[in-house]
Amino acid sequence: MNTDNSSVIKASVVGATGYLGGEVIRLLLNHPFVKIKHLTSNSSAGMPIFSFHPTLRNVLDMKFEHFDYKQVAASSDVVFCAVPHRAALSVVADLLKENSSLKVIDLSADFRIRDAKTYQEWYNTKHTQTAWLKNAVYGMPEFYHAKIAKARLLANPGCYPTSAILALAPLLRSGAADPNNIVIDSKSGASGAGRSLSQQIHYPECNENLKAYAVASHRHTPEIEQELSIHASSPITVNFTPHLIPINRGILTTVYCTLKKSMETEELSSLYMDAYEKKPFVRMLEQGTWPETRFVRGTNFCDIQVTIDKRTGKAIIVSAIDNLIKGGAGQAIQNMNIMFGLKEDLGLNATGVCI
Amino acid sequence: MNTDNSSVIKASVVGATGYLGGEVIRLLLNHPFVKIKHLTSNSSAGMPIFSFHPTLRNVLDMKFEHFDYKQVAASSDVVFCAVPHRAALSVVADLLKENSSLKVIDLSADFRIRDAKTYQEWYNTKHTQTAWLKNAVYGMPEFYHAKIAKARLLANPGCYPTSAILALAPLLRSGAADPNNIVIDSKSGASGAGRSLSQQIHYPECNENLKAYAVASHRHTPEIEQELSIHASSPITVNFTPHLIPINRGILTTVYCTLKKSMETEELSSLYMDAYEKKPFVRMLEQGTWPETRFVRGTNFCDIQVTIDKRTGKAIIVSAIDNLIKGGAGQAIQNMNIMFGLKEDLGLNATGVCI
Amino acid sequence: MNTDNSSVIKASVVGATGYLGGEVIRLLLNHPFVKIKHLTSNSSAGMPIFSFHPTLRNVLDMKFEHFDYKQVAASSDVVFCAVPHRAALSVVADLLKENSSLKVIDLSADFRIRDAKTYQEWYNTKHTQTAWLKNAVYGMPEFYHAKIAKARLLANPGCYPTSAILALAPLLRSGAADPNNIVIDSKSGASGAGRSLSQQIHYPECNENLKAYAVASHRHTPEIEQELSIHASSPITVNFTPHLIPINRGILTTVYCTLKKSMETEELSSLYMDAYEKKPFVRMLEQGTWPETRFVRGTNFCDIQVTIDKRTGKAIIVSAIDNLIKGGAGQAIQNMNIMFGLKEDLGLNATGVCI
Amino acid sequence: MNTDNSSVIKASVVGATGYLGGEVIRLLLNHPFVKIKHLTSNSSAGMPIFSFHPTLRNVLDMKFEHFDYKQVAASSDVVFCAVPHRAALSVVADLLKENSSLKVIDLSADFRIRDAKTYQEWYNTKHTQTAWLKNAVYGMPEFYHAKIAKARLLANPGCYPTSAILALAPLLRSGAADPNNIVIDSKSGASGAGRSLSQQIHYPECNENLKAYAVASHRHTPEIEQELSIHASSPITVNFTPHLIPINRGILTTVYCTLKKSMETEELSSLYMDAYEKKPFVRMLEQGTWPETRFVRGTNFCDIQVTIDKRTGKAIIVSAIDNLIKGGAGQAIQNMNIMFGLKEDLGLNATGVCI
Repeated sequence: MNTDNSSVIKASVVGATGYLGGEVIRLLLNHPFVKIKHLTSNSSAGMPIFSFHPTLRNVLDMKFEHFDYKQVAASSDVVFCAVPHRAALSVVADLLKENSSLKVIDLSADFRIRDAKTYQEWYNTKHTQTAWLKNAVYGMPEFYHAKIAKARLLANPGCYPTSAILALAPLLRSGAADPNNIVIDSKSGASGAGRSLSQQIHYPECNENLKAYAVASHRHTPEIEQELSIHASSPITVNFTPHLIPINRGILTTVYCTLKKSMETEELSSLYMDAYEKKPFVRMLEQGTWPETRFVRGTNFCDIQVTIDKRTGKAIIVSAIDNLIKGGAGQAIQNMNIMFGLKEDLGLNATGVCI
Repeated sequence: MNTDNSSVIKASVVGATGYLGGEVIRLLLNHPFVKIKHLTSNSSAGMPIFSFHPTLRNVLDMKFEHFDYKQVAASSDVVFCAVPHRAALSVVADLLKENSSLKVIDLSADFRIRDAKTYQEWYNTKHTQTAWLKNAVYGMPEFYHAKIAKARLLANPGCYPTSAILALAPLLRSGAADPNNIVIDSKSGASGAGRSLSQQIHYPECNENLKAYAVASHRHTPEIEQELSIHASSPITVNFTPHLIPINRGILTTVYCTLKKSMETEELSSLYMDAYEKKPFVRMLEQGTWPETRFVRGTNFCDIQVTIDKRTGKAIIVSAIDNLIKGGAGQAIQNMNIMFGLKEDLGLNATGVCI
Repeated sequence: MNTDNSSVIKASVVGATGYLGGEVIRLLLNHPFVKIKHLTSNSSAGMPIFSFHPTLRNVLDMKFEHFDYKQVAASSDVVFCAVPHRAALSVVADLLKENSSLKVIDLSADFRIRDAKTYQEWYNTKHTQTAWLKNAVYGMPEFYHAKIAKARLLANPGCYPTSAILALAPLLRSGAADPNNIVIDSKSGASGAGRSLSQQIHYPECNENLKAYAVASHRHTPEIEQELSIHASSPITVNFTPHLIPINRGILTTVYCTLKKSMETEELSSLYMDAYEKKPFVRMLEQGTWPETRFVRGTNFCDIQVTIDKRTGKAIIVSAIDNLIKGGAGQAIQNMNIMFGLKEDLGLNATGVCI
Repeated sequence: MNTDNSSVIKASVVGATGYLGGEVIRLLLNHPFVKIKHLTSNSSAGMPIFSFHPTLRNVLDMKFEHFDYKQVAASSDVVFCAVPHRAALSVVADLLKENSSLKVIDLSADFRIRDAKTYQEWYNTKHTQTAWLKNAVYGMPEFYHAKIAKARLLANPGCYPTSAILALAPLLRSGAADPNNIVIDSKSGASGAGRSLSQQIHYPECNENLKAYAVASHRHTPEIEQELSIHASSPITVNFTPHLIPINRGILTTVYCTLKKSMETEELSSLYMDAYEKKPFVRMLEQGTWPETRFVRGTNFCDIQVTIDKRTGKAIIVSAIDNLIKGGAGQAIQNMNIMFGLKEDLGLNATGVCI
C-alpha cells in the first residue's frame, strides 16, 4: 500500500459504545494511516463519542450515528463490527454484500467457529450466513498471516482463545503433547464481561471476590479446540475453566499438558522461542520470570513462560494478555494492518502503563 | 471439659503481630471459654495490641510482651505459635518440654511434614525436633478428629493445603481417581503473603495484576501430597500452582482430576455429600452454584462444588476458603475446641460479611 | 426487660434483600435476645435467604416472604423497615397502626427530616404521613438516648449524616464554631449505593476511579443541617460533598470548620473526649493517629481525630465509620437495644476484620 | 528548533527506577524528536531497564548506568532529574555547572519553593543551592509559558499542587475569592507514594481502606500557597488535606472557596473557560458533568468543573489529573517541549485508557 497522506484507510466501527468498540476507536486514532468515517450505535445515535468513552473528550469530535449499512459500506475501506454475537450475522453479511471491495473485521464469535453445527450447539442459534462463514479467516496473525492478507471477512479471535492458543500451539505443533490431557485454567478481569450491567459485575459483589464460572460449559471452548486441533493435526478436547477476577484488564492463562515423552525445560523453551522469534507481539520471558498481566496492560503483547514440572512430567505454560487489546481491539488492528499490506505493528506501539 | 464459668482455657499467642496472629486473637476474644494470657512479640514488646490490630482498640487492653517460654508455658493451657517456619522448631519444643500438660497449636509448617528429609528438602533447613515431630498431629478436623482430641502438638494445616485437601479427599478415598493426573490451580489473596513488606505486595504492583508464582516449586506441595497420599492409600504426585490475586482474603482452588472410569456428576456429588454431611464447616453447594470467596469471607467455612466434564471425563472440583480463617486461625480454634473436648464450632459462629 | 431465655424480642425485616437488610439480619442472628420472625421481599418471595446473602447458607434456614403488614405486625415486637425512601411512608404507617405495641425502626430517609416541606423539596415527594412524622425520633444514640428509649417510630440516621454529625456535634455544642463556614467532605465505598445496578457502580467504571457526585445537591444535606442546627442551637448551613471511592465498605469524612476564636488542639480534643467518654461506640484516637476505615470495618465504631490547623485557625476533624453498620444496620440494632431497655452494645461486640 | 530527523533532543533520566522516572522514559519513547542517552540508577546499575519497568521489555534495549554527572552532562541536551528531594540539590547543580548549554528538569521539590527559609522549614534541610534556586522556573505551562521557554533549570510542579493550582488560579486571579477561606481536600492513588516499601502501601493495609494523612502538615502546602499567592497577588493561606485512596493512579481535588460577593455559576464557569481556552491540556467539562480520574488516566489532561453552592455562597471546584502524568512526567515533557521551542503537546497525545 502506498502510505502517503492521500491514501489513508477509511475505517468505521459498528457497535461503538462498548469497551471493545472504544478500544478500537482509541487505537485507530493512534494509527498513522487511518481516517475514521462512521461510529455507529442505534441506541445512542446523536450522542458525542466522549459520552461513552470519556478519555476521548477534546480528542475526537464525532457523534454516534444510527447504523445504515449502505452508507457505512459505501464510505469505508474496512468496518470493525463490535456488536454482540448473533447480531453480527446479518450486519456482517449486509456490509460485505453491499460493497464488494469492503473488508470486515468481526469481533464477535459469529464467524470464528468453522462448523455451523458446532456454532449452533454452543451459541444456541442457527448460523444464517454459512456462505460467508466459509470465506471467513480466523485472525490469529502468528499463524495465519498469508490467509489474513487475502481475507475479506476476518473473524477476530476471542480473548480467552487468544491466550490459550498462543500458550499451546508450539507444543501441539511439536507432537509432544498428549492430546487427552490438557487443562486450561484462565483468570480474567471484569472488562471481559462487557459494559452491560449484571449483578456479578456490580462493584460490591465483584470486588474482593474470586469465582469460577461457566465451568465445563464456556462458549470459548469449541473455538479453542478447533484451533488447537489444527495445530496438533488431530482432534483435541480440553478442560477450559474461566475465572472472574477483580481487576479491570488482563487475562492470565495457566496451561497444564501431559507429555508423551520426557522433555527438558530448555527443549520446551526452544520450541517456543523458535515459534515466536519473528512474531512482534509474542514475548518469551527470560527463564525465572513469569508473566504478569501488568507487564502487558495497555499493549498488544502476549507474554509467555514455560517449564517442565519434573516431578509430574507435565508441561506448564503461562500466558498473559490485555483482554481488550491482544484479546480484542489490538489484534483487530494487527489484522487490519496485514489485510492492507502494512507493517503488522503500525499504530500498536504505544508503550503500556505497568502501574 | 466442664464448661462452667470457672473453668476457662488459658490461651497465649506467640508471634502475635502478624495477620494470622491477629486473627487468632480476634477469634479467641469471641470464644466463650477462653481467657487470653500472653501475647508475645519480641520486636514489639511494650506496644499496645491495637497498634498492630487496630480493630482491637477499646476492645482488648493488653500489650505485646517479650517471649519468655517459661512464663508462657507456666500460665497457659494452650499456646498458639504464629512465628515463621524454622523459628517455630525451638519455640514449640521449649514450650512442650517446660509444661507437660500444655498443648501447642503450631501455625507454621514445621510440624506438618511427617518426613524430616522431605521437610529439609523443601524448607531448606534441617529439622531439629524430630522427636516432637513424631508426636505431632496434622490438624484437619474433617478427617483426624480422634487423633486431634488426644494431641499435645497440633500442626495446623497450611492455607493452600486446606483448600486442596478438602477438595480432593472424598474423591481419592473412593479410589476413582487416576493418581497421576491431578492438577491443583489455586488463587490466593495478598494477605497470604503476610505482613512483611515486599515489592510484589507493594500496592501499585499487586493491585490490578495477576501472576502465577513458585510454579512447580511451592512449599505447600509436599504437604498436599502427603495428605492426599494418605486419603488415596497410595503415593500421589500433583501439579500445584499458586496465583497471587489482588484481594485481601480468600483462596479459590480449582482441581482437575482424571478418573479411572466414567462417572456421573450425581455420583461424584454423593461422595462429597456423604463425606461432609456431619462436618460443620464444609458446605456442599446446591447444583448450579459454584463457590465464591465472598461466600466464606470472615468465616470458617469451606464451600465446595463438583462436576464431571462429560467431554473429557475429568472431575472438576472448586473450593473456597478464607485463607486466614479456615486456612489458618479459624481452623486452629476448631482444633483447640476438639483438643479440649468442646463443641467443634464454639467461637466460630460469627456470620461472614459477604460484601 | 427481663432477659431470660423465654423473653426474646421478636424481630422482622421488611425489604430484606438489600445490603442494609442483609446486615440487619446478620446482626440480629448474633444478638442474644432476638428471634427472627419474618423476612420479606415481594420480588423474591419464596427464595432462600442465602440466595441474596450467601454467607447465611447453612446458618439461617428461612425464605423471603411476601410482605403482609397484618401478619408482620401481629407477630413482631419490632420491625426493621429497609425499603427505599417514599416506599417506607405507607409501610411504616400500616405497621404502626396495625399493632399499637409494635416498634418500627425505619432505615429509609422518610422520617428523618422533621419538616415535611423540606422533605418534599429534597426528596421530590409529598410526605403523606405527617402525623407519624411528628412522633418519629431521630436515632442517634449518642445524643438522644432518653427519647429513643420511649420511641415507637425510630428514624435511623443516614450513613453520611452519622459520620458528619458525630464529627461536628461536640464542637458546635461548645459554641466555638463559626456557623457559616463548615465544609464536610465525605468519601464513601460503593456499598452505599446499594444493590441496584447502575453504570457508575459497574465494576470496570467504579474500580480505579475517583469522583465527586451530587455536588451541592445531595439529599443528606438537609438531614445534616437539621441535626447540626439542633446541636449549635442556631441555623447551620453546610457545604457537603460526597465522593465515590472504589472500596466496598467505609465512609471517611473530613470536616473543616472556622472557629470564632483561637483554640488549642488540646482544648478541642477535650471537648470531644468529654462528649464521647461514656459512649461505647465512639472512639477518640490517641493524638498522632488518624482514623482509617479499616479500623472500623465490620464494627459499630465511629473513630474520630481532631486538630487545629494553627496556620489557618480552623478545626479539622476526621471521622470513620462502616457505612453499613454504624451508618445503618448496627446503629439500628443499637437503637433497638435502647428501645427495649437492653444494654446498648448487645449483639454488637463482634470484633472487626481490619484486613 | 529545527525538527528534521537529524536534530533530535538528547535526553537522559537520573534516578530512572522509580514510578516517575519510568513514566518519563515511557513518554520520551513516544516523543518524535527525542533520543534517550543515559538512564541512571546507582543502586541498579547494569540491570536492564525492563527489570524495573516491565512493559518496556522488547521495547527499549538499554541498561541502568551508574550516575556520572560529567558523562551525562556532556552527552545530553536535557536531563530529567527524578531523584528524591534533598538528593536533587547537588545532582542538579553539578549537571548545570558542567555543561552550560544543558537544560535540567527537576521533578523533586528542591527548586520549587522560591524562599530558601520556607524550604528549610518544611523539608527539614538547608537549601545548599540558593544561587541556582534564583534561576529556577516553576514549570506550570498554563501560566508561565514565556519564562519556561527561557529556563535552564525547570522545577516541575508537585502532583497535589498541580491539581490544586489549576483548580484555583482563575478564581484567584479574578479577585473574587476570600483569601482566608480556602479548603483543598485532595484524594490520591497509591503510586503517589512511590516505589519504596512502607506499611501503609502494603497491599492488605492499603486496599479497602481510606485515610487522611499529614493533616495540616503536608509539604506540598507551601508550594500551593506560594503559587496561589502569586495568582491572587496577595498572601494566601490554605487548608490542604491529602487522602490515600486504593487506586493506582489519579488525584481528585475538591476545593471550597468563600467568595467576597455573590456570583452565578455561569460567571464562575466563564472565568475558567477564558483562562483555559487555549491551554491544550486543561479541559473544562460541560455543565452537569464532574471530573473522574478515569477520564484522565494515562493522559496529560486536567479536567475541571465548577459550581456555586447557592445555599452557602461558596465556589466548589473539582479537578482530576493522572498524578504520574500531568502531576509529574507528562508535565515535565510538556515543559521540555516549551523549553526547546516545540509544540506543547508533542509526544503527549496518546489517548488514555478509561477502563
